[in-house]
Amino acid sequence: MKESYVDVLIIGAGPAGMMAGLALAKAGVNVRIVDQKPERLYTGQADGIQPRTIEVFQTYGLAERLLREGNQMHIAAFYNPRPDGAGVELTERVPDITAPTARYPFEVTLHQGAIEAIMSDPMEAAGVHVERPIVPMSIEVSRNPHDIQDPKAYAVKVVLKRLDIQNGKDDLEAVNAMFVIGADGAHSWVRKAIGIELEGSQTDSVWGVVDLVLDTDFPDSRAKAVVNSMNGTMINIPRENDKNRLYIQLEGRYQLEKLADGRVDVKGSKAVVDPDRVFAIAQEIIKPFRLEKKSEFEWSTIYTVGQRVASAYSAHERIFIVGDACHTHSPKAGQGMNASMADSHNLSWKLVHVLRGWAKPSMLATYELERRKYAQDLIAFDRVWARVITGKPITPENLDGVSPEELRNIFQTFGVFSSGIGIQYLPSSITNVRYQILASNLSIGQRLTPQIFMGAADRRPVNIQDAFPADTRFGILFLAGGLKGAGLAAFAFKLETLLSGYGSTSRSSIQDLFNVMTVASGELRNYIQDIPTFLRSHWSKVLLDGMDTQTRGGDAYANYGISVTEGAVVVVRPDGHVGTMAPVDNYGIQHLESYFGAFLVPRRRDIRAESPVRVRL
Amino acid sequence: MKESYVDVLIIGAGPAGMMAGLALAKAGVNVRIVDQKPERLYTGQADGIQPRTIEVFQTYGLAERLLREGNQMHIAAFYNPRPDGAGVELTERVPDITAPTARYPFEVTLHQGAIEAIMSDPMEAAGVHVERPIVPMSIEVSRNPHDIQDPKAYAVKVVLKRLDIQNGKDDLEAVNAMFVIGADGAHSWVRKAIGIELEGSQTDSVWGVVDLVLDTDFPDSRAKAVVNSMNGTMINIPRENDKNRLYIQLEGRYQLEKLADGRVDVKGSKAVVDPDRVFAIAQEIIKPFRLEKKSEFEWSTIYTVGQRVASAYSAHERIFIVGDACHTHSPKAGQGMNASMADSHNLSWKLVHVLRGWAKPSMLATYELERRKYAQDLIAFDRVWARVITGKPITPENLDGVSPEELRNIFQTFGVFSSGIGIQYLPSSITNVRYQILASNLSIGQRLTPQIFMGAADRRPVNIQDAFPADTRFGILFLAGGLKGAGLAAFAFKLETLLSGYGSTSRSSIQDLFNVMTVASGELRNYIQDIPTFLRSHWSKVLLDGMDTQTRGGDAYANYGISVTEGAVVVVRPDGHVGTMAPVDNYGIQHLESYFGAFLVPRRRDIRAESPVRVRL
Repeated sequence: MKESYVDVLIIGAGPAGMMAGLALAKAGVNVRIVDQKPERLYTGQADGIQPRTIEVFQTYGLAERLLREGNQMHIAAFYNPRPDGAGVELTERVPDITAPTARYPFEVTLHQGAIEAIMSDPMEAAGVHVERPIVPMSIEVSRNPHDIQDPKAYAVKVVLKRLDIQNGKDDLEAVNAMFVIGADGAHSWVRKAIGIELEGSQTDSVWGVVDLVLDTDFPDSRAKAVVNSMNGTMINIPRENDKNRLYIQLEGRYQLEKLADGRVDVKGSKAVVDPDRVFAIAQEIIKPFRLEKKSEFEWSTIYTVGQRVASAYSAHERIFIVGDACHTHSPKAGQGMNASMADSHNLSWKLVHVLRGWAKPSMLATYELERRKYAQDLIAFDRVWARVITGKPITPENLDGVSPEELRNIFQTFGVFSSGIGIQYLPSSITNVRYQILASNLSIGQRLTPQIFMGAADRRPVNIQDAFPADTRFGILFLAGGLKGAGLAAFAFKLETLLSGYGSTSRSSIQDLFNVMTVASGELRNYIQDIPTFLRSHWSKVLLDGMDTQTRGGDAYANYGISVTEGAVVVVRPDGHVGTMAPVDNYGIQHLESYFGAFLVPRRRDIRAESPVRVRL
Repeated sequence: MKESYVDVLIIGAGPAGMMAGLALAKAGVNVRIVDQKPERLYTGQADGIQPRTIEVFQTYGLAERLLREGNQMHIAAFYNPRPDGAGVELTERVPDITAPTARYPFEVTLHQGAIEAIMSDPMEAAGVHVERPIVPMSIEVSRNPHDIQDPKAYAVKVVLKRLDIQNGKDDLEAVNAMFVIGADGAHSWVRKAIGIELEGSQTDSVWGVVDLVLDTDFPDSRAKAVVNSMNGTMINIPRENDKNRLYIQLEGRYQLEKLADGRVDVKGSKAVVDPDRVFAIAQEIIKPFRLEKKSEFEWSTIYTVGQRVASAYSAHERIFIVGDACHTHSPKAGQGMNASMADSHNLSWKLVHVLRGWAKPSMLATYELERRKYAQDLIAFDRVWARVITGKPITPENLDGVSPEELRNIFQTFGVFSSGIGIQYLPSSITNVRYQILASNLSIGQRLTPQIFMGAADRRPVNIQDAFPADTRFGILFLAGGLKGAGLAAFAFKLETLLSGYGSTSRSSIQDLFNVMTVASGELRNYIQDIPTFLRSHWSKVLLDGMDTQTRGGDAYANYGISVTEGAVVVVRPDGHVGTMAPVDNYGIQHLESYFGAFLVPRRRDIRAESPVRVRL
């Protein structure tokens, strides 16, 4: 059998696997990604990109294309039964996104294949291609304790089988990997192979989905429309190229086959419930509005809703699972693809830091801590949302039904969560909440709120999220407050000394690991004279808390709730979440030392031990 | 000799020629573009893109790439002599752009070759490639009166010579073109061949230019910095990839060779004045700041300032000249490339309309009317600007010198003009100012002011400029005011009847020629019920004058100065300029009829005469 070596092997090239592949490839990691499907996806599957995911795409330089290709969903409309019983009517329209700090206050809808392509194109430009069609046959972690402890050991062996090679030929390959990521979906082979269970339950709710272009007089065909009729519920999602997706409640409609365990037999039902029959139900739900096909069905499916979370997210922190392999839930809240890519976005930089010898392997445990908690919150949200979505409307005969107000209130209450904007990671070595008090409007553990500053040198407006791209570096946002002159120079020197204590070799520079952005106070006549050299490694690294006539900028201290005299150091993790904050004084330096010391490896001062090239000289 | 036929032949593939090539290629015109240079440009030449040009690029879908590749210049800093005589000091910083309605309130700096590539890539995608190295040998317009009158006649014969073919081989081609565009620069062969003179004069002002990366402690190296020292004037332009361009005043510095007519001999001087000597002058001007080379010179030149405008812009409206072939002036106001591309943007849609048989050939005369007046204004501005830029600073010994206030005031006064935002075309058949009174803040003849509306169907914010892309169609912005119900339906019917009277054949639809966008009043519960079918040929065609929580939108009536009860019809020419306005009543319909009737060809109702296919059936 052929044998090979790789740093990271990704199994599965859906959104979760592709995001991991992109992040690792961009960071220069030796990575391979395999998928069982012979071709990439062209229709159907997931299609909703939430505001936080757009922000994450922007940090990878991909939001521009996403926005160019996708449709935008700005508004949510709620339809409920008319008092006279003659079908449904508009109850109200509300913004689709209710997260006040969202940089992109809308959802982007675009089919999953296009989203995968947006990630795979730059991944391929970085030299990594999806290998297809390939399935894993076996996976095992080394039992050698030294291998497990050493992140650079090839501790996992996976046997892969190529499916496009004739029987009897050389179709097997043993891949020795430092780490493996299982991104192989709800029925994850990796998850099962490492003995992780899904915890949770299956519901009785059954939905049909059709994608097509509509001919309709329904006024909210270009809004997210939740139509809660006496004949069941339908959700309309406007899509790219004038298409629509309709989610249509099916239970109670047909005698759907049940399996032995009581669950609906989706496979069996698919034979019965074709898209024409699903669409006919939509036509009934949406009355008195007219709904006709303007195109053939581009894609359709039916599914039951399961709400489950994996009991663990890794084996020995050498094999990880991400995406649908970890969590399944209803697709109607538009979360699945977003949660999956966010898993990989969270895991990737941690793997990079460990592989580069910058961070301690123990940091990898924070992946499960952070993302499993999120998945549990997601399921809790999904249960509430699924209940109101599938419930019968309130009527004089059914006073226990769902009222329009309840539905709208739940939609808006969960808006900050479902947009991804409010995702809060638990305290850990990388999320240290000690000095949370320094900023009343920035939450340690949440993503850094967008804010527009002005470049000190060019007065160009810059969104702080763009100053911290997804390049695996920690952002140090130093809001200097009233500190100037000698005081500023002294603090900058201490910060430089501290940060220079990390990095794997004495040859790496502070800028390899840290991206220091300084916000100077007031109007600077001459930022070169007034700002210590360390804080301006490039002219773009010094910002002003100002605004020009047309751009909404300025008031950063007020927006963040940071004292304009005291200032603060805000540490931004490579995934954009606030890692910690520190005061601008010696206590702050001490706090940063203990923060980074908890998970970063101290820089080794011995050149010879690190640099074989120099030893030879 | 080989003989060929083409609708439009463009001679010269600089910014002016490329913009014409792009616009015509995108419109599907049979066009060829030739250039004498064997390769495209990679360094030097023009580099400043003004706000209006960014807007124009956006209408061609090219602003995204321009903004991605270019540097942004947001601020202008003025340096003047220190009172103590020890060099210069900062006097003040002001916004680089002072045009309040600019959608992009900054200049983009990027080398000319990159800008040409931004246009040539989509032009090539439309199947048109620059043919090189080719020069014209002769050009003549047919003397047959019928040819001159018929826009579809091949009325111009140009002999082209390929320069990369060995002597004696078949290197000549006679091209028969309906129209020819001479975009062949300041020394235009086409201009000379058709006997057009440049009117104006050469100044004594001589400037050196160097492009490089700087090592400097000058705090405004990333601003447009006008340094008016006792040792002469220097202008700093920050560029892409951390580069800078320096314009340095040379007159009085060297004994520059003069030609017989008294003008400076630039060619002769080039041998004397190398970039190192030019840079040494910059170092002297900018003292006490340090200025060193961080890179080699990427490009350099010296030039004298001529201020000339061509006496005519066309021969028989079959051969046109555009760009530097029409006007030369100082490059320091950053106008040249912008004016050149704007010439072609103005001319192209007119050629398309005439070639398609939509517009009368007489419309082509408006090109010279509009663009020559602009060039004259530009020269007038350039004279004032060049005087203050090259003047000695005011001092106790030189009270006639230029004061810092004068320089800054002139800079700001001309901001609306030099940004391109305030360009005002003269009244003509296509610019009818009769109902200017309808909108106090929109000028007929100026470009349509950007304004954010909301899509009625999807509530997506849309900048009205994006609703009218450069697709050769006339935009009809119908602000309905208080009109609703039967009144709206009646006006829509009259508008439809009117607009259906144009177009070359009975098979073309109104939407081929007109892009009707309706702004409905107030909150629409159901835009499909409330808006006549003609006004919603697509769901995106109905807008609301609203805003969401994050986007600056709404208040369009107030911003445009249009009565919210009376409304108005605003006609937007294919180049984005307001062509006319009309009241929302029968007088308005009559006015629109006389406006379009002045230059559009009435639709021919006889199918048989137009459609040979149908005749055969």
